[in-house]
Amino acid sequence: MRLEKEQIEQHNSKLAAKHKRAFDFISEDIPQVESIINKLQQFQIAIPSWALGTGGTRFGRFSGKGEPGNLEQKIEDVGLLHALNRSSGAISLHIPWDIPKDAEQTKALADSFGLQFDAVNSNTFQDQAEQELSYKYGSLHHVDPKVRKQAVQHNIDVINHGIALGSKALTVWLADGSSFPGQLNFREAFQNTLESLKEIYAHLPEDWKLFVEYKAFEPYFYSMTIGDWGQSLLLASKLGPKAYTLVDLGHHLPNANIEQIVSLLLMEGKLGGFHFNDSKYADDDLTAGSIKPYQLFLIFNELVEGMDARGMDHATGLGWMIDASHNLKDPLVDLLQSVEAIMIAYAQALLVDRNALKEAQRNNDIVKAQQILQDTFRTDLRAVVAEARLRDGAALDPIGLFNELAVRDQLIKERGNNTVATGL
Amino acid sequence: MRLEKEQIEQHNSKLAAKHKRAFDFISEDIPQVESIINKLQQFQIAIPSWALGTGGTRFGRFSGKGEPGNLEQKIEDVGLLHALNRSSGAISLHIPWDIPKDAEQTKALADSFGLQFDAVNSNTFQDQAEQELSYKYGSLHHVDPKVRKQAVQHNIDVINHGIALGSKALTVWLADGSSFPGQLNFREAFQNTLESLKEIYAHLPEDWKLFVEYKAFEPYFYSMTIGDWGQSLLLASKLGPKAYTLVDLGHHLPNANIEQIVSLLLMEGKLGGFHFNDSKYADDDLTAGSIKPYQLFLIFNELVEGMDARGMDHATGLGWMIDASHNLKDPLVDLLQSVEAIMIAYAQALLVDRNALKEAQRNNDIVKAQQILQDTFRTDLRAVVAEARLRDGAALDPIGLFNELAVRDQLIKERGNNTVATGL
Amino acid sequence: MRLEKEQIEQHNSKLAAKHKRAFDFISEDIPQVESIINKLQQFQIAIPSWALGTGGTRFGRFSGKGEPGNLEQKIEDVGLLHALNRSSGAISLHIPWDIPKDAEQTKALADSFGLQFDAVNSNTFQDQAEQELSYKYGSLHHVDPKVRKQAVQHNIDVINHGIALGSKALTVWLADGSSFPGQLNFREAFQNTLESLKEIYAHLPEDWKLFVEYKAFEPYFYSMTIGDWGQSLLLASKLGPKAYTLVDLGHHLPNANIEQIVSLLLMEGKLGGFHFNDSKYADDDLTAGSIKPYQLFLIFNELVEGMDARGMDHATGLGWMIDASHNLKDPLVDLLQSVEAIMIAYAQALLVDRNALKEAQRNNDIVKAQQILQDTFRTDLRAVVAEARLRDGAALDPIGLFNELAVRDQLIKERGNNTVATGL
Amino acid sequence: MRLEKEQIEQHNSKLAAKHKRAFDFISEDIPQVESIINKLQQFQIAIPSWALGTGGTRFGRFSGKGEPGNLEQKIEDVGLLHALNRSSGAISLHIPWDIPKDAEQTKALADSFGLQFDAVNSNTFQDQAEQELSYKYGSLHHVDPKVRKQAVQHNIDVINHGIALGSKALTVWLADGSSFPGQLNFREAFQNTLESLKEIYAHLPEDWKLFVEYKAFEPYFYSMTIGDWGQSLLLASKLGPKAYTLVDLGHHLPNANIEQIVSLLLMEGKLGGFHFNDSKYADDDLTAGSIKPYQLFLIFNELVEGMDARGMDHATGLGWMIDASHNLKDPLVDLLQSVEAIMIAYAQALLVDRNALKEAQRNNDIVKAQQILQDTFRTDLRAVVAEARLRDGAALDPIGLFNELAVRDQLIKERGNNTVATGL
Repeated sequence: MRLEKEQIEQHNSKLAAKHKRAFDFISEDIPQVESIINKLQQFQIAIPSWALGTGGTRFGRFSGKGEPGNLEQKIEDVGLLHALNRSSGAISLHIPWDIPKDAEQTKALADSFGLQFDAVNSNTFQDQAEQELSYKYGSLHHVDPKVRKQAVQHNIDVINHGIALGSKALTVWLADGSSFPGQLNFREAFQNTLESLKEIYAHLPEDWKLFVEYKAFEPYFYSMTIGDWGQSLLLASKLGPKAYTLVDLGHHLPNANIEQIVSLLLMEGKLGGFHFNDSKYADDDLTAGSIKPYQLFLIFNELVEGMDARGMDHATGLGWMIDASHNLKDPLVDLLQSVEAIMIAYAQALLVDRNALKEAQRNNDIVKAQQILQDTFRTDLRAVVAEARLRDGAALDPIGLFNELAVRDQLIKERGNNTVATGL
Repeated sequence: MRLEKEQIEQHNSKLAAKHKRAFDFISEDIPQVESIINKLQQFQIAIPSWALGTGGTRFGRFSGKGEPGNLEQKIEDVGLLHALNRSSGAISLHIPWDIPKDAEQTKALADSFGLQFDAVNSNTFQDQAEQELSYKYGSLHHVDPKVRKQAVQHNIDVINHGIALGSKALTVWLADGSSFPGQLNFREAFQNTLESLKEIYAHLPEDWKLFVEYKAFEPYFYSMTIGDWGQSLLLASKLGPKAYTLVDLGHHLPNANIEQIVSLLLMEGKLGGFHFNDSKYADDDLTAGSIKPYQLFLIFNELVEGMDARGMDHATGLGWMIDASHNLKDPLVDLLQSVEAIMIAYAQALLVDRNALKEAQRNNDIVKAQQILQDTFRTDLRAVVAEARLRDGAALDPIGLFNELAVRDQLIKERGNNTVATGL
Repeated sequence: MRLEKEQIEQHNSKLAAKHKRAFDFISEDIPQVESIINKLQQFQIAIPSWALGTGGTRFGRFSGKGEPGNLEQKIEDVGLLHALNRSSGAISLHIPWDIPKDAEQTKALADSFGLQFDAVNSNTFQDQAEQELSYKYGSLHHVDPKVRKQAVQHNIDVINHGIALGSKALTVWLADGSSFPGQLNFREAFQNTLESLKEIYAHLPEDWKLFVEYKAFEPYFYSMTIGDWGQSLLLASKLGPKAYTLVDLGHHLPNANIEQIVSLLLMEGKLGGFHFNDSKYADDDLTAGSIKPYQLFLIFNELVEGMDARGMDHATGLGWMIDASHNLKDPLVDLLQSVEAIMIAYAQALLVDRNALKEAQRNNDIVKAQQILQDTFRTDLRAVVAEARLRDGAALDPIGLFNELAVRDQLIKERGNNTVATGL
Repeated sequence: MRLEKEQIEQHNSKLAAKHKRAFDFISEDIPQVESIINKLQQFQIAIPSWALGTGGTRFGRFSGKGEPGNLEQKIEDVGLLHALNRSSGAISLHIPWDIPKDAEQTKALADSFGLQFDAVNSNTFQDQAEQELSYKYGSLHHVDPKVRKQAVQHNIDVINHGIALGSKALTVWLADGSSFPGQLNFREAFQNTLESLKEIYAHLPEDWKLFVEYKAFEPYFYSMTIGDWGQSLLLASKLGPKAYTLVDLGHHLPNANIEQIVSLLLMEGKLGGFHFNDSKYADDDLTAGSIKPYQLFLIFNELVEGMDARGMDHATGLGWMIDASHNLKDPLVDLLQSVEAIMIAYAQALLVDRNALKEAQRNNDIVKAQQILQDTFRTDLRAVVAEARLRDGAALDPIGLFNELAVRDQLIKERGNNTVATGL
């Protein structure tokens, strides 16, 4: 299924007057509105291929319908999202679930939707049918060098798939950990991981990045071998200039100050990318901004400030990706909600009066500093984000149009009731 | 597979001298040792049928071998455990996974292993193939009365299965909750749950108990409709004298003082039962006592004190059950470790000098109170627990004997490599 | 110091045009804007007398200047706040710090600022110079009946002071708890507390309420005798119809769903009042809405929904109070920021389309339910809150006017550099 | 007050038979018992000068009696502890609270009790009376270079005091942080801290160490500028070989795996020292081992393993210090309980069968690994720790003797009821 230009235009024309009123109002208050819109238009958030199907918990999964049954349909799904919001112009693949049969054909298909291939992701947290050795006790950190070698080779394969598709980064999320005291020698597990990553790093093309993700717990419940940003940074530093830390919002201990971590990683030149989602308790993988929207804004506030301080391009300086699980809501709609929340947070961060904030900080004027951030956050920028979409030919109300066109129903018609997407 | 009396005796005779030395030493320090042994012998911990297979997380499952493929084999597994430690004399079934084809035959089989049927458990957190309406948005709390009715009927069916097997309690763990603000009207969800439970309660035989379990989060990530002990107690109080709260150690927010909750529920006459496991981060479902053994002791300390204050029989006054998930270790060995940890904690709680503690509390002598508990906890009672096993004809070293006899290998021979147990 | 009507009018006239533009824009979108403004005008948040001075931590206190040195100056401070925002029309006193020498004179002074006396607060978490017995090991829960009696008598004295001033409620925040396992018998501590509260309750005038506050930890670090809403509700239920639970936002374990607690307490008719603040880690007592503004909105969403369902008057149905600690910011400005955040959250909760939300919930349309709440939260209602102030004769920009008039400088001139307020 | 040799001997002779029975029993099971005793005898835990008085919370302090009123009396107190257990042979001073008037005399006094001077501690979290600039908004991270300079100079002064007393390390616990989003530019705060620490580092004698402590929160409630081990390690690495991370058990987010942190810091050669205490919720500063004794053992397990792997001397390789707050118990008795818990955990860690554990890890035999650690932890080594004391001329039962001799009563007689120790 592909959205027609006319469908979008028709939708937009109905909402045009209402939008114009709101946009005109807010524009008048924001001298730099054009610059913000410009940046919003350039900002693209990659959609992970595994988020297009219904997710579940260890207690079960309540499947949806019309889910994409193969890589082509996944690309089609992201194409739909991108047509609706023009902010989802990339897809992040998961190997071995998304191995393209014909890379050129796959690229052409993606290209027809205006999509790029973002970071490729390896999987050593599950055993595959044809796999020789098990990852039950870990992969890159494993005590057995043969298992490590197998896992290294898998990552090299993933890089090769990525090269064929035009990806420029490998994301390594390592589930390796332990569930009981005594199970691991922490140091050896760390050293094994480092050695394995070095081998993978050696196969990285010149213009690629290696993203080292960390996670506090789950699927192991006593220790994770790359458990926090400190451990990830240590590894990335030892690996070299192409290695970076990747931050997933749900991968922290309770109450962690993620925005400070982001700031310090940028300071060290070692922040590589981002996985957006939201959570209340653990790695809940909920819609971005659905639980703690102010935190999302504060993180973007640090991102914008820190990237500007280093002269980084917002759109390309870091890898931006959603990593959520859609257990209850239609995955496509859920993703539209996530992208919307991210764009609003980014727009608000762009609106922050940096000079005034710096001045307040210089004077320890905490009241003023708080006011600057809160007043910005309280400013309703939905019309600005919508305007960026409008100018790009996307829908003023992506979810509204999704519903009007009964997109899911049509996908069910095309794909059937019982298709199940690979994924989490 | 059944253990022979001679196998156990032979095993015990090899360890007899070492055991006698340790037991004699500790007995001399404990005047009431015979009373403690007596209570340990009476204390039985039910094994849940779903814990006999390898568990997993949402990221996957690394299956084991020789797992029980049907109810009979599950009973056989618990029979093996009970033969090894004589402390696992009950099995807790999960419906619909464990519906007996012929209840009388099933009872006879269990009886041949010396096993009783503990609380039966209903399942409304997953959809079954033949099920008419989905539990995706909950069951007993559902906005749709037809879904509630279906879930109520399922619980009534479970009661009926339990009656046929001689169970005396129904455990309702309700996964019902929400993952996003706005999804639920909390009050209506609570009221619907109450009405549904009332209907179930009405079908409860006179001598049965209804256990209302609570859980802070997972599988829903914003709210759980029975989320803490306060909500469970509210429901149990409104339901009537046969309704009780069930405490699962892993179902709390970080840092919760579970022993205080236990004490207050006992005070109210509303503590019904216990699910043992251990955890560091969330509902990790690890081996009992593997992470916080002192907490396990402190909980037993409150249980013993509180049950004695009400004149309750330790063995029968509450429902005792393990509820753990065995993702990495052999489930049977893991269960042996859990039972051992529970028995040690119980033995230590029996050893606490109640009068001295009360005296210290009366004098606000905190140093003394702490010393009493810590000195008891530091006392090595493994030989006392072993003595209780010895007298009951169980193994001095259950895991040692499990390994000596290569029990799992034999089960694999009997059942094959690829059997997979239903369960979590 | 008293603000003159002209000072405010002059301030408002400068901002009038800007305000009008924003208010006109938003009013057009909100048919019920007049009803919302009306409710905002009626809504008053009590200021605690102990929040008017600089707070500290156990590591120290960095005092401010010009702090109120006596009860009269505290009333004057709240009078200033109320003149600035017309939303702080009550003061909550702390005994023994604020014992009025002459109740009639004190009432007259408060009256001259348009202030009422909200709930009075007792203090049994510190020893006073003249006190006979120590509260080191607790007060109402103490093992020694003489200590309990002393603490009961103190609470009765507090009630009597409150009667003289026209208060209608007593708030009991009980620091009683324990820091080490074994220190307390939880049941006896609870029973002692209940008996003590019964005696206090017996002295409560007919038209008074007793607020039973709970707190998870601090100043004790193992258990708190009234540690969560379940324990508070249990006490309030046993005490009788005049006893209620009071919720302080900072008094929970990490990740607690406070809005659900609020909803259930309202359902039970047992929610009595609220202490507003914000926190990231513990009972941080930060400015309301400064860390988790969306949570504040969600709580108000439940409050409005639940009070409406019971036909309660928003302004008088519950006790509304700030309970924050101002360690770094000027207490008066900090309080203005808290009140502003509370009013915005309340306004947004009033704006939620209840029928649409109920409809979405009825259909399990989670996307829609989330959208309703988030769209409301993203709507900028600052101009509506400002309009309510404007109509009441308060300042369009209270903090702006506070700064323009250099209020603190003038207070320093009047009171001196080294005055220190009693309090936390 | 000084304990006489005869008092201890008399006490020990009464307990000799009981002790001998327990020690003989356990020794028979432990071939390496002499080596363990030897290491226990060498192991000394420094007592912080600020822990000798009653501590408090922001809600107040319930003072004790007979507290040390000056540095000499603090040394006397530690001398008493050391006489009782011969494991507290060092004192850690806090400047400016403990500035010696005459360093030589102070050293001689300490020497007469067999005490060394451990790390000296600076204080920039409070303002002192004579201080020019305030630390309200931080010290080493302050935006104002003049404040930073003042704080640097204070640390240099502390080093100089330490040199005079024979200390070999400076502990910098930096309270610097922020309580509100926007208050700080995280990067600049970090860079300012680094620059300040560099100046301090430059004044460090050749044979000194600089300990960089971290803390997750409190006294600031949004961010701490040195908030976790990652930030501390980053600073220590940039500073140079004399800079190390110091771990305080209470300074982590909920559920942190501290033993893993310890292991990795040792791996990096950057673990400098330890502050022992225990906690359930936050930085509760409770008696070591009073809440999570198994965690304390697991930490020592990593310390012993990691130090042995680097060939470090256990007694001198790291700085060992208690950092607890004694709000309820007699500080001296509380410290005796802490030291006892630490020595037991250390003894158990020494008992772990390293080869068997390594073998189990190599085979992914998780059951065995868990058993090795738990069996060791369940082994009662109190008699071994007591034997180490006995051989050193200390008391078999230090708290028993403290009570027999009514030490506190005698101190009250000497010092009076109302002395108050400086400290936390």
